Amino acid sequence: MTTLSVTGGHVLLPDLTVTRADVLVDQPTGEILEVSPDLAGEGDETLDASGGLVTPGFVNGHCHVAMTLLRGYADDKPLEDWLQEDIWPAEGELTAEDVRIGAELGVLEMIKSGTTAFADMYFHVPEIAAVVEEAGVRARLGRGVVTVAKDEDAAHEDAEASLEVAAEYDGAADGRISTAFMPHSLTTVGESYLDEYVPQARELGVPIHYHANETAGEVTPIVDDHGVRPLAYAAEKGLLESEDFLAHGVHVDDEEIELLAEAGTSVIHCPASNMKLASGMAPVQRLLEAGVTVGLGTDGAASNNDLSMLDEARDAAMLGKLAAADASAVPADAVAEMLTAGSADALGLETGRLEAGAPADLAVIDLESPHLTPRHDLVSHLAYAAAAADVRHTVCDGQLLMRDRDVLTVEEAAVQDRALEAAEALAARVDG
Amino acid sequence: MTTLSVTGGHVLLPDLTVTRADVLVDQPTGEILEVSPDLAGEGDETLDASGGLVTPGFVNGHCHVAMTLLRGYADDKPLEDWLQEDIWPAEGELTAEDVRIGAELGVLEMIKSGTTAFADMYFHVPEIAAVVEEAGVRARLGRGVVTVAKDEDAAHEDAEASLEVAAEYDGAADGRISTAFMPHSLTTVGESYLDEYVPQARELGVPIHYHANETAGEVTPIVDDHGVRPLAYAAEKGLLESEDFLAHGVHVDDEEIELLAEAGTSVIHCPASNMKLASGMAPVQRLLEAGVTVGLGTDGAASNNDLSMLDEARDAAMLGKLAAADASAVPADAVAEMLTAGSADALGLETGRLEAGAPADLAVIDLESPHLTPRHDLVSHLAYAAAAADVRHTVCDGQLLMRDRDVLTVEEAAVQDRALEAAEALAARVDG
Ligand SMILES: [Zn+2]
Ligand SMILES: [Zn+2]
Repeated sequence: MTTLSVTGGHVLLPDLTVTRADVLVDQPTGEILEVSPDLAGEGDETLDASGGLVTPGFVNGHCHVAMTLLRGYADDKPLEDWLQEDIWPAEGELTAEDVRIGAELGVLEMIKSGTTAFADMYFHVPEIAAVVEEAGVRARLGRGVVTVAKDEDAAHEDAEASLEVAAEYDGAADGRISTAFMPHSLTTVGESYLDEYVPQARELGVPIHYHANETAGEVTPIVDDHGVRPLAYAAEKGLLESEDFLAHGVHVDDEEIELLAEAGTSVIHCPASNMKLASGMAPVQRLLEAGVTVGLGTDGAASNNDLSMLDEARDAAMLGKLAAADASAVPADAVAEMLTAGSADALGLETGRLEAGAPADLAVIDLESPHLTPRHDLVSHLAYAAAAADVRHTVCDGQLLMRDRDVLTVEEAAVQDRALEAAEALAARVDG
Repeated sequence: MTTLSVTGGHVLLPDLTVTRADVLVDQPTGEILEVSPDLAGEGDETLDASGGLVTPGFVNGHCHVAMTLLRGYADDKPLEDWLQEDIWPAEGELTAEDVRIGAELGVLEMIKSGTTAFADMYFHVPEIAAVVEEAGVRARLGRGVVTVAKDEDAAHEDAEASLEVAAEYDGAADGRISTAFMPHSLTTVGESYLDEYVPQARELGVPIHYHANETAGEVTPIVDDHGVRPLAYAAEKGLLESEDFLAHGVHVDDEEIELLAEAGTSVIHCPASNMKLASGMAPVQRLLEAGVTVGLGTDGAASNNDLSMLDEARDAAMLGKLAAADASAVPADAVAEMLTAGSADALGLETGRLEAGAPADLAVIDLESPHLTPRHDLVSHLAYAAAAADVRHTVCDGQLLMRDRDVLTVEEAAVQDRALEAAEALAARVDG
């Protein structure tokens, strides 16, 4: 077939209104041809969206997808103990094969929850790229760089490897894969390394993605060492360009918000991770009011513990109100935007809006359930009440990835079996 | 048949550990006969729990179940505007029939998400009682009392109606229905009415349930009028007995926590509602450390927007950490307890623990999904990753309410159709 018509549903439009419409997709180019009523007879194939809401595929703006293998492995611990006693030792044992299996599991979960694109920072990136290619999703991938507590040679190797992977995979999988240079954070990569490698990333033409202002504890050493707050330091180091996007942005002051707005640097809000690790509440309403592009991310499964962007949307709507002490803050339409176009814009992807010429990345959410009844406001349902299991179909780049909850590009049972086995073996290695 | 054997699963035990076990249920009495491995051959009928976690049925400790009709009707507004401009006008238009339809929808959603018991404060309580009876769930029901902004006669009528409904329905539906006297809150019921009616409720022998310390704004007028903080005032008015349970408890100070602990009064934590209305963060870890019994509640669907207790569990685990600024606060096992035995104890119900002699109220959660893979820790999955749609079977009082997601006691499609129609008509009446 060459065209696919998504018919009978309501569609979330780029202006965040909802209307009765069909979506006509050109499969060879992976583009949307038209969004309008009465396209039912137009497609070579039809995808039934009746009783459903057609939304842009969700864009998970910050993830460590292979960490699904560590889901529930160590919860309820303070951040430092959690990292040092559990997560880092476990990650030290992860093989390339483990990363591939964890990525398969995570991407499977993403497809089942309507996510069609994600940004990922991890290691063994070629494994993750292979999974993205086979599963049919879209991703901006990068290798995390950490230089602290490493000898000089190892630190340089790490940074060079991040640049190499960014160069090698940018444009892979028919353009579904793009890349970024990914220093882990402003405190875990030394200043001299930023000075050396950030210009090389710019030369390469890839954006830079990093964790910033996640905890109160990481602000102080930057102020102490550099005399300015983290995002002023980031600007000095050339890390605050319009193509860059940072994860968290919890502890940002008004000046830093202004810096972000002026630079056009985006923030990926990760409310579940920020709550679970007790990091704090990002000032999302203030970021939005300042004109900062805000997307949503799940962070890794170990600090969430799922990869459903609908959970993240609900968390963002709720935590945003608490942070602003205002029940009108971060309303449902702002959340719908962060979930789709916000994250897509942050990552520099063309997706996130259902309109002619855009990539055909979409999810169909089944509305005919008790928890989505009645239907006074479908955008409200998207933000507050819809859940991963309500996603009926997932389409990326014009290709069907899931039809009637049947995932077509990943072997669901086999992936789960491999993940169970790998996780058990991993836990035995770490504990043994 | 007379016995039902729930076989092949793992079971969440009262000590919050998980073990491989079957559950043998005596259906005529509705009691659990035994929890142990190898009961597969014992039951007249078998319920397959293989690949699943058998948990006590969830207990929703605070709800206004008929408000499902207002799900998504008015979001993202400050509490006072929301109540005065949207919720109260809409509630003023609710007929007895509307309340019945809303309750059917809400109870349907509860059964589909593993909830087998709830506490409810609303009006047209006989309609709600009829739904509880037919659907087969358990509930502690009451009529809310508001005396402010009412003339004296109407205020007395309201209070008397609450006592009458408490007297009439206590023990109904073969004991599945119990009742409470339910003054709406310490600021919406005048002192003279508390003085008159609280002793009558005590004489009737029913507990008292009310909203307390939900917002910072309701603390000040009580301190101004009575010279003490709300829970000291509640104690003075005789509202702080060991059988009583209050909703929210967000803005409680150390002295009030001590009062609760000494009195044995329980708190129903409603994290989603507290976030959505920007009310604040309840100090759940401090309440637990003080020995206060804490349960979980969804509050009404208008401030949530769903009735899934698994969402509430996740919210409680996460918000509890943020409130304590400690990632080790409100750990998964504490959440599992609040979700089951905590709420049950708060409501004075015998349910909430899977053990011989206890009511056979249980849910079977399907674990074989990508988002619940791997399975390092099933209690973690219950708190953080399981969702409503993972509930495979629901049993209350020994009777099957849902089997393989097929609800047996409520006509799912018809209830949704009625709810759609009633909600549309309601919105037209309010707007018109
Ligand atoms: Zn991260
Ligand atoms: Zn309430």
